[in-house]
Amino acid sequence: MLAAMKRTSFAGMPCSVARTLEVVGEWWSLLVLRDAFKGVRRFDDFQRSLGIARNILADRLAGLVEHGVLERRLYQERPERYEYRLTAKGLDLYPVIVALLRWGDRWAADEMGPPLVLTHKACGHEGVPVMVCPGCREEVDAHAMRWRPREEAARTA
Amino acid sequence: MLAAMKRTSFAGMPCSVARTLEVVGEWWSLLVLRDAFKGVRRFDDFQRSLGIARNILADRLAGLVEHGVLERRLYQERPERYEYRLTAKGLDLYPVIVALLRWGDRWAADEMGPPLVLTHKACGHEGVPVMVCPGCREEVDAHAMRWRPREEAARTA
Repeated sequence: MLAAMKRTSFAGMPCSVARTLEVVGEWWSLLVLRDAFKGVRRFDDFQRSLGIARNILADRLAGLVEHGVLERRLYQERPERYEYRLTAKGLDLYPVIVALLRWGDRWAADEMGPPLVLTHKACGHEGVPVMVCPGCREEVDAHAMRWRPREEAARTA
Repeated sequence: MLAAMKRTSFAGMPCSVARTLEVVGEWWSLLVLRDAFKGVRRFDDFQRSLGIARNILADRLAGLVEHGVLERRLYQERPERYEYRLTAKGLDLYPVIVALLRWGDRWAADEMGPPLVLTHKACGHEGVPVMVCPGCREEVDAHAMRWRPREEAARTA
């Protein structure tokens, strides 16, 4: 908590990467989300899966709820118990998790290979999703893309 | 530095997301990489772009070099000056940066809209890359994909 409060905020930077990291960039937050994508919903299950201190987990969950990425739902009344569910805003972080997974599979796997196997339900293809141009659907890398500030793009359009 | 040293390591977790975050998940590291993808190479330019304390920047750059994501190259001999360049391992983080950018454009942009415009050089299409199935090239979301632990996938293959 202390570290989080003393930390520089990225919220004011005119950059979508910085603004996203302001929401999900804390140490643990993206692993909490990874678990949520795997179907984990309850505090004790997150805690068991992550092996994280309860106060840090509570802080990360509260932050993700505050940003509207997770929502807290009552699932039991006596005693009151809540679970944490991905919102539409949270579900839309899936490409971030997949991009992290893909890089780890490639550059940080042990001799056993990638720990998870992903399958596209619709077509049955087995493999981790890739990043492509939304126009031509070719896979892209850093060299394939040009970027310009919005103002410059507007002037030359 | 202190916070980083006291932090739980994700390196031992059998998960590619955790292993990637062990390399790039520190506060600031992904913004350092974002700048590297924009062509920033020199310490003072990173510092100016990020408005970060010099000791924290030095720590993040050293960590990224240690993990082989950036490499340090001498570009001037008297006095000695180094620049930081993305390696192949670092360039392969592009989808992570793009996924963060895409989410921020959608969920955290101000009324001016997305700050950057991306264009695919090959086909000229303007737009942020999307995550698709590597088989059928359909865009995927969390509900579109099934995941299984490697061992289970091997048993049922």
